[in-house]
Amino acid sequence: MSLNTYGHVFRVTTWGESHGPALGATVDGCPPGLPLSETDIQVWLDRRKPGQNKYTTQRREADEVRILSGVFEGVTTGTPIQLMIENADQRSKDYGDIAEKFRPGHADISYWQKYGIRDYRGGGRSSARETAARVAAGGVARAALAKLAPALTVTGYMVGMGEKDIDRSQFDWDEIERNPFWVPDSGAAQEWAGYLDGLRKSGSSVGAMIEVSIRGCPPGLGAPVYAKLDTDLAAAMMSINAVKGVEIGEGMAAARLTGEANADEITMGPDGPIYSSNHAGGILGGISTGQDLVVRFAVKPTSSILTPRKTITKSGEATEIITKGRHDPCVGIRAVPVAEAMAAAVVLDHLLLDRAQTGGQRGQIG
Amino acid sequence: MSLNTYGHVFRVTTWGESHGPALGATVDGCPPGLPLSETDIQVWLDRRKPGQNKYTTQRREADEVRILSGVFEGVTTGTPIQLMIENADQRSKDYGDIAEKFRPGHADISYWQKYGIRDYRGGGRSSARETAARVAAGGVARAALAKLAPALTVTGYMVGMGEKDIDRSQFDWDEIERNPFWVPDSGAAQEWAGYLDGLRKSGSSVGAMIEVSIRGCPPGLGAPVYAKLDTDLAAAMMSINAVKGVEIGEGMAAARLTGEANADEITMGPDGPIYSSNHAGGILGGISTGQDLVVRFAVKPTSSILTPRKTITKSGEATEIITKGRHDPCVGIRAVPVAEAMAAAVVLDHLLLDRAQTGGQRGQIG
Amino acid sequence: MSLNTYGHVFRVTTWGESHGPALGATVDGCPPGLPLSETDIQVWLDRRKPGQNKYTTQRREADEVRILSGVFEGVTTGTPIQLMIENADQRSKDYGDIAEKFRPGHADISYWQKYGIRDYRGGGRSSARETAARVAAGGVARAALAKLAPALTVTGYMVGMGEKDIDRSQFDWDEIERNPFWVPDSGAAQEWAGYLDGLRKSGSSVGAMIEVSIRGCPPGLGAPVYAKLDTDLAAAMMSINAVKGVEIGEGMAAARLTGEANADEITMGPDGPIYSSNHAGGILGGISTGQDLVVRFAVKPTSSILTPRKTITKSGEATEIITKGRHDPCVGIRAVPVAEAMAAAVVLDHLLLDRAQTGGQRGQIG
Amino acid sequence: MSLNTYGHVFRVTTWGESHGPALGATVDGCPPGLPLSETDIQVWLDRRKPGQNKYTTQRREADEVRILSGVFEGVTTGTPIQLMIENADQRSKDYGDIAEKFRPGHADISYWQKYGIRDYRGGGRSSARETAARVAAGGVARAALAKLAPALTVTGYMVGMGEKDIDRSQFDWDEIERNPFWVPDSGAAQEWAGYLDGLRKSGSSVGAMIEVSIRGCPPGLGAPVYAKLDTDLAAAMMSINAVKGVEIGEGMAAARLTGEANADEITMGPDGPIYSSNHAGGILGGISTGQDLVVRFAVKPTSSILTPRKTITKSGEATEIITKGRHDPCVGIRAVPVAEAMAAAVVLDHLLLDRAQTGGQRGQIG
Repeated sequence: MSLNTYGHVFRVTTWGESHGPALGATVDGCPPGLPLSETDIQVWLDRRKPGQNKYTTQRREADEVRILSGVFEGVTTGTPIQLMIENADQRSKDYGDIAEKFRPGHADISYWQKYGIRDYRGGGRSSARETAARVAAGGVARAALAKLAPALTVTGYMVGMGEKDIDRSQFDWDEIERNPFWVPDSGAAQEWAGYLDGLRKSGSSVGAMIEVSIRGCPPGLGAPVYAKLDTDLAAAMMSINAVKGVEIGEGMAAARLTGEANADEITMGPDGPIYSSNHAGGILGGISTGQDLVVRFAVKPTSSILTPRKTITKSGEATEIITKGRHDPCVGIRAVPVAEAMAAAVVLDHLLLDRAQTGGQRGQIG
Repeated sequence: MSLNTYGHVFRVTTWGESHGPALGATVDGCPPGLPLSETDIQVWLDRRKPGQNKYTTQRREADEVRILSGVFEGVTTGTPIQLMIENADQRSKDYGDIAEKFRPGHADISYWQKYGIRDYRGGGRSSARETAARVAAGGVARAALAKLAPALTVTGYMVGMGEKDIDRSQFDWDEIERNPFWVPDSGAAQEWAGYLDGLRKSGSSVGAMIEVSIRGCPPGLGAPVYAKLDTDLAAAMMSINAVKGVEIGEGMAAARLTGEANADEITMGPDGPIYSSNHAGGILGGISTGQDLVVRFAVKPTSSILTPRKTITKSGEATEIITKGRHDPCVGIRAVPVAEAMAAAVVLDHLLLDRAQTGGQRGQIG
Repeated sequence: MSLNTYGHVFRVTTWGESHGPALGATVDGCPPGLPLSETDIQVWLDRRKPGQNKYTTQRREADEVRILSGVFEGVTTGTPIQLMIENADQRSKDYGDIAEKFRPGHADISYWQKYGIRDYRGGGRSSARETAARVAAGGVARAALAKLAPALTVTGYMVGMGEKDIDRSQFDWDEIERNPFWVPDSGAAQEWAGYLDGLRKSGSSVGAMIEVSIRGCPPGLGAPVYAKLDTDLAAAMMSINAVKGVEIGEGMAAARLTGEANADEITMGPDGPIYSSNHAGGILGGISTGQDLVVRFAVKPTSSILTPRKTITKSGEATEIITKGRHDPCVGIRAVPVAEAMAAAVVLDHLLLDRAQTGGQRGQIG
Repeated sequence: MSLNTYGHVFRVTTWGESHGPALGATVDGCPPGLPLSETDIQVWLDRRKPGQNKYTTQRREADEVRILSGVFEGVTTGTPIQLMIENADQRSKDYGDIAEKFRPGHADISYWQKYGIRDYRGGGRSSARETAARVAAGGVARAALAKLAPALTVTGYMVGMGEKDIDRSQFDWDEIERNPFWVPDSGAAQEWAGYLDGLRKSGSSVGAMIEVSIRGCPPGLGAPVYAKLDTDLAAAMMSINAVKGVEIGEGMAAARLTGEANADEITMGPDGPIYSSNHAGGILGGISTGQDLVVRFAVKPTSSILTPRKTITKSGEATEIITKGRHDPCVGIRAVPVAEAMAAAVVLDHLLLDRAQTGGQRGQIG
């Protein structure tokens, strides 16, 4: 990952601030000949779009994507695809003393220290609005995967919110699209609604745990030792705003297990190896095994809350701050489509990188 | 991260297999004029060296590093530093049917599927021996940091092993060097010794939790959005063998917190901002704040255990496997110096990258 | 250089086609705190703009640049700068059989072979319009150089056109801005006007030789062995459309010289070393010496001429082609500001890369 | 190209100085399953080896390559291949005042200025010995090309030396291997022998012009706009020591031509397009056409000559210098196998990069 670019051969550079005229993604290295329209990308952006229900920020953004290059007569040309989203809601407001105070938990202070400059209009580059560009780029990755690995699906969902967890015995893939939390457990969906409503009303916020499953991933993607598939997935998730931890398969809990408990035993099935379990999260030695890829991450609660917090001003004076305005009680909800987009981009990138090195040929078993 | 390279401007490429003639690291982009000798690097390798106590593999490797280039008359020249470690203990043994069977939890099967070839002599490139090269490269990074950021220290230690945790109220920095587990709690050190001895005797293994603290890190290192300091630290840790999860600061637990509980309030101290807590792990918006950087990761238990496990052969036949020979009951122990090395390399890289872009100038507070 | 990106730490990604809605450059890694406005960039674009005189294409493009990100309150923020130029003149025309025929000397056929798709509306990504994005990015590089190396100037000029050469004894820096050819010799300027007019009227075209001098470049920029300053300058020039050869200093003529004739003898001046000559073009071992950097390149004649040329169609049938419409008799003229922009970007990039590795410190002489 | 690395997906990092213990190349991204032995690489190194005849330096180096990693049971594993060459002839000598004087035309002074340190023992990293590592890496590239593009050949040869040129009407591919100059014209071979002998006896030196032809290159390799095949070939050649200019196809002479003279007309042949000429050097828009790739470059005369030259010392005092010892009257001769190696690496890299993006599929003609 470079400053604002990720990917080895499918390379995405995002640009733009929360309150500038526009933001977007420059997508380089996309295979040619893929059908791609603005509608194909918009469908993913609409999932992320704020203001859709009372659980997410009331900022209203159309988030309409325009393809400015790289597509001709409805198909990708192999040249860079520029995806631009204009910032419609640059609400003219009085930032008041926000410009002088550092918000605890925000990047205000670290940006200021590094750059000696600070875009106080909503966080500038550190704003979650940047993730719209990721989702748009993920839409291109999805279009490529649809052609190159049609059996592959990328599905994100919430598995925890604050003190609440899903009941894995009730896991239902179809439920994910039916509730505003993308939670695969209808009982949890109901319970969480009330829980979050309470937090919203009290001006508080809460963290979240999100999981992404990539099913139908072919074996052989990834590489030792630094371009490991798990390394790149972890980096992709960790680069999303407010993410503080990332796990593959068993994750942090692997530290608790014995070798016996952690083993994924192997038997031979009709279409290849079958594993008794998936503690590994579908990756061994940095390379996919053909099992489901499972990556999980934690999003911290937003620090924009109604309870006053102690802080300082640029001139070093003690003060307090309350962040008013339109904010998400659980920013983790909107991280779901972002994580899916990042996962799609990483998997496509490794699929292309693999065919560079191996031509896509696989060692045979049986 | 490229296939076998990490770093933006301080770039390390490792090479070599567990049973080939040698392995090593090519270190590019090192600042010139740094005092550097083989002894400076050997001291770090000796910490990682196997066979030092009964808790780590009995494979005997001198792990003597040679500097083949990039140093002249005792100082770095600014050209690539080649660090070579010969594999002394290439024990000639009968691999028997290991060459035909896939070990569950090892990269045997995924390497085979990707490359159509498999180095059955101890895992080849997926072996933990590769980490010796990382430690050597970390020694170069340490030498550079000693000059460029003399107040900065990088310290790794274990905070959990299987079902055991340290007692944070007993945290003692000085204890870390006094016990074979690099654990900062003398009570835990004693208790863990017996626990691990039991596992070793029963031919079992266990996972571990390791933490690295970087104290004295200047503010302003890192960058939005994809070269975040936390992203690069997470990727560095996740690229280490057997690591399944990575956390920054509060980590996965941040998903459980409310915004009030997670806030690191800011006051002004004599030398700059002071924070009431460090849930953020020293990083906001991908950029260091001047607080301690805290990264934590989980290492899975080694799958080389004496209990037979079901698996298949290359020809797809069902079989069982027991991994005999010299192995670690807790591979996590040896991950401590490896993690320190990776952390040192990442921080140095960002220090150089920062002075490329900003010249090291900082926005002033107060 | 990646597919559509150049630079190590000052990284520019260009995007867009000649007949799409817009094109532009994403500039990453720019130092923060630089004054930058659209006017600062427009001045360079205006030099390149077509339709300014009868010697360049009559396509009319306003080539107005918009800064969409990375600048706040008139200064750069250190985040990506998106520079967008809308394609005003997407003249609706009948491409006729152009879409089926390959134009000799154009990228039509190679794009088709590679991508299986072809943007026949003026060359798509292979069009010289892409160079507008380079010039815009070069404007950012100039703004950074103005602050970081204020004594440094980048000046491009023509030294040959077809059979004509400049008379170096008449070299006059001030003349460059006075004539439409950016030629530093007033006699040549007059003579070339008639020469080119003749070619234009006959529907022919001619090649050109351009030189860029970078004066005031500090010593120590560049690096062995693959990021040599001459390598990166050569690559930058060779990446410009229609360039077929690149020289540093003495260039191809160095093959003719003896060691005695080629030596740049050194004496000590009041401010450092003085060289008796500059056969080296200001670079030794890939690193700048403090002398003027001199790079020269050849632009082939455009293949869009009125004389019919034999070619084939996509279905492999023999045919002839004449390229009608608005084209440049000497595309080399417009390469001058493009080359300046590329040179500025390369030098800035190396200046930043140098301060990453060395902190900008220099070995002292005397 | 990074500091000491070149290539997009087939990435080569060279390391080592002329008088250190060893030098070598770390080759990453090589396809797995290729037969590769030390003999396969040695054959190319032997072509470059000094001391083979009276026209090249009398330094005696066995230049024996060892493969330290990445090959198992005679085939490449897909992991990094470490190629090491020990420096046998580190002649212990009195460097006398060489350590204090800067040799005109050498990198002594620019290295000193940049790094504040200087390896006076033969040039350190700027020595032509670094090219042995390139040739070794090129041997790996050749082995990969032999499998992936068996019809492709890479042939380098001299086309000029000082005032002498070959007679293209006498061009004979078979002659290249028969004379010490790799010149494809038996008349020139004879004439040049005497010419060079005279220069050698007088302690002088002379430049050279080398050409590399890549025959049998498939169409579709390369990419707009910055990873152009011609850009990468030019950069590869320009990165070789002492190279001052690079040309593709018609090269610098293209500046002299009219559009009519420069056109490569196209007709349809039985196996695809046929071109009436190859002014383009096999590349249009940065992408190969299927014609021969032709790249040409100039090597300056070595500045190590017996005529005293004026220079200065590190303390800035005026002095003179004569470079005694073993040196080449025409260093260009030994650049021939180096250029072949670089060309092979670039073409393989683009072949892999192309199959990443397009899967190797081609647009059909006819």
